[in-house]
Amino acid sequence: MTTTPAARIITLTTDFGYRDPFVGIMKGVIHGINPPVAIVDLTHGVAPQDVTGGALALAAAVDFFPPGTIHVAVVDPGVGSARRPILVETDRARFVGPDNGLLSLAGGRQRLIRVVHLSNPDYHLRPTSMTFHGRDVFAPVAAHLSAGVPPEKLGQAVESFKSLEVPEPQREDGGIAGEVIYIDGFGNLTTNIRREDLETFDPSRIAVRIGDRVVRGLSANYASAGAGNYLALINSWGHLEISRCEGSARSGLDAHVGTRVLLEGA
Amino acid sequence: MTTTPAARIITLTTDFGYRDPFVGIMKGVIHGINPPVAIVDLTHGVAPQDVTGGALALAAAVDFFPPGTIHVAVVDPGVGSARRPILVETDRARFVGPDNGLLSLAGGRQRLIRVVHLSNPDYHLRPTSMTFHGRDVFAPVAAHLSAGVPPEKLGQAVESFKSLEVPEPQREDGGIAGEVIYIDGFGNLTTNIRREDLETFDPSRIAVRIGDRVVRGLSANYASAGAGNYLALINSWGHLEISRCEGSARSGLDAHVGTRVLLEGA
Amino acid sequence: MTTTPAARIITLTTDFGYRDPFVGIMKGVIHGINPPVAIVDLTHGVAPQDVTGGALALAAAVDFFPPGTIHVAVVDPGVGSARRPILVETDRARFVGPDNGLLSLAGGRQRLIRVVHLSNPDYHLRPTSMTFHGRDVFAPVAAHLSAGVPPEKLGQAVESFKSLEVPEPQREDGGIAGEVIYIDGFGNLTTNIRREDLETFDPSRIAVRIGDRVVRGLSANYASAGAGNYLALINSWGHLEISRCEGSARSGLDAHVGTRVLLEGA
Repeated sequence: MTTTPAARIITLTTDFGYRDPFVGIMKGVIHGINPPVAIVDLTHGVAPQDVTGGALALAAAVDFFPPGTIHVAVVDPGVGSARRPILVETDRARFVGPDNGLLSLAGGRQRLIRVVHLSNPDYHLRPTSMTFHGRDVFAPVAAHLSAGVPPEKLGQAVESFKSLEVPEPQREDGGIAGEVIYIDGFGNLTTNIRREDLETFDPSRIAVRIGDRVVRGLSANYASAGAGNYLALINSWGHLEISRCEGSARSGLDAHVGTRVLLEGA
Repeated sequence: MTTTPAARIITLTTDFGYRDPFVGIMKGVIHGINPPVAIVDLTHGVAPQDVTGGALALAAAVDFFPPGTIHVAVVDPGVGSARRPILVETDRARFVGPDNGLLSLAGGRQRLIRVVHLSNPDYHLRPTSMTFHGRDVFAPVAAHLSAGVPPEKLGQAVESFKSLEVPEPQREDGGIAGEVIYIDGFGNLTTNIRREDLETFDPSRIAVRIGDRVVRGLSANYASAGAGNYLALINSWGHLEISRCEGSARSGLDAHVGTRVLLEGA
Repeated sequence: MTTTPAARIITLTTDFGYRDPFVGIMKGVIHGINPPVAIVDLTHGVAPQDVTGGALALAAAVDFFPPGTIHVAVVDPGVGSARRPILVETDRARFVGPDNGLLSLAGGRQRLIRVVHLSNPDYHLRPTSMTFHGRDVFAPVAAHLSAGVPPEKLGQAVESFKSLEVPEPQREDGGIAGEVIYIDGFGNLTTNIRREDLETFDPSRIAVRIGDRVVRGLSANYASAGAGNYLALINSWGHLEISRCEGSARSGLDAHVGTRVLLEGA
């Protein structure tokens, strides 16, 4: 009797990129331990060492996977140092990765069941390197977990895991001051302002300021603004996004993560 | 009794790139609906909003998949606007994506069985976003289809789907005037001139002009020209291609999609 | 009775990149011949025509896959020319690709059973192109092999296969002269100096010279040097690596494959 049945899917999210065999090696380890499990790449294009970017990508994805899915995430500049390898188990999913905040946005949105410090070397590859825990710790642990090994065998329960600070938008003079938190491959700018923050505003009278540009009104989709024009909309994550029809808002506005965005009601 | 049995493979072709979790999210949706189906990435490196590039990639691939394969393609600048989400069913395959021409090169090469406007929201995720139909419409529809849901349940049959205009080569003064239609990652230049167009020419006497360069004769393979030299050959799609041995014809010739190519017989 | 049972996994390593449908097409061919086999991408980000880079990526990965795995590798500037398509079978794995040295680093580390020239067209796609043997020769051969076709049916046994010359480090004046042989996506510099080469040195007194920089001591992990600092460590492949904490040693040191590295004992 256990709350953690075998899993059919393991997802992988890393900053390993696509030039090297690192991700493929992790899959070899997983297949060797639990051949039938399906492995799904979430993305390996997280910018190097960008823990927040990886955490946001994972958080955007978890609700679209079946219950019980195991999510492995490795953006891990502190690999081999004091940061702990952990398992975070919630009522909907299991997360395996370093305890550096990477798992906290996805894991924090669900009801927490337990956190385990992955301290039992019986479930790691040996010898265990100090530089590639994706291969030696996280992949084998996730594979054993997917095959039905109970979490309590993987190490000691701990009380908490590290949280990530994502800046919250601020109410200011009847408006909202926010910032860009994620930029996708199309150059669309996701802000930290959410659909719920806009409930008291009239969508047609909204003005969004970014740099010296003002975008008026909320669009329903990317095409409605006409090629080359900027627009604001609520994106598929439920966040306010600034985009450019058939173009890149990132290049056009010279924006980056942290760029300030001001939303006004009229 | 139906012409559309369950499918074992769903392929994905998008312009979503590899930095974001969008493709992984689509796979989560598909696995949640039909766990055993195999998902194959065709490519996610189509240039943003390049409907023609996506259509050509899909057309080059479909003949190499088993009959009944479901191909999902999403290069969709008009997502959420008036363009329709459609299913194109042929005697060999099924295509799911936006009705913007993306499916027409692949679908048009096979015998058409029917076109369905994917208007039944029972097979979409809800709420359905206006900006990510890959996740909310195309992935769930393809998954249900692969699990055996008959096409007529997915929406209303329609008469036709949008065709893409790919320029045809022209006969001129005993030669052929064509252009570059696709450039691959090696920098090889695929033209719109096909093997069949060359049947009346003597391969050894062919001259291909591009910019101020002339390539003489047809090569059998990339290596035969010697490192750094340009060559012309019939590529694996059956098209005339201009390449550079151990180099990139794209950079060397400063070529792009639309660059003119003149083929002469002597 | 055969030494080559069916395989559950086929891996793919190529320089095809991620923009084109070439890899997806190979998967379509494989699935059409042997639907249940699992296909794992090792990497498709090998630099164009970089046979050594592909060989090193494959060699780093093979030990982490289950016995019997079939590894297909295609970095093949000589496709369609006199170079032979081959199968290399060892006591642990099978390798399928061009006989240009690509398979030699991985295959050479294991006990050789046989080498087969893939000369039997019955197991190729027909017509067979001169430019895409990944699709027409290597994918179908690997798929048939994974389905249990015995190697002797695929062509004629040959005595040997081409070896790759990777430069060996040299002992010099009590130190070791080596060079950079691989650079990963983080900009970490893998050298040809191995863990075994350092056994006679005191790790705390090692000095590594590269360009006009000297790195002192061996670090246990990337984090220990402090952000922006350079460090040397034994990496997860067992090689001496020069890295930059939370940065790229490649850009910081303007290094490339072939850059000289001098290791001194004090």
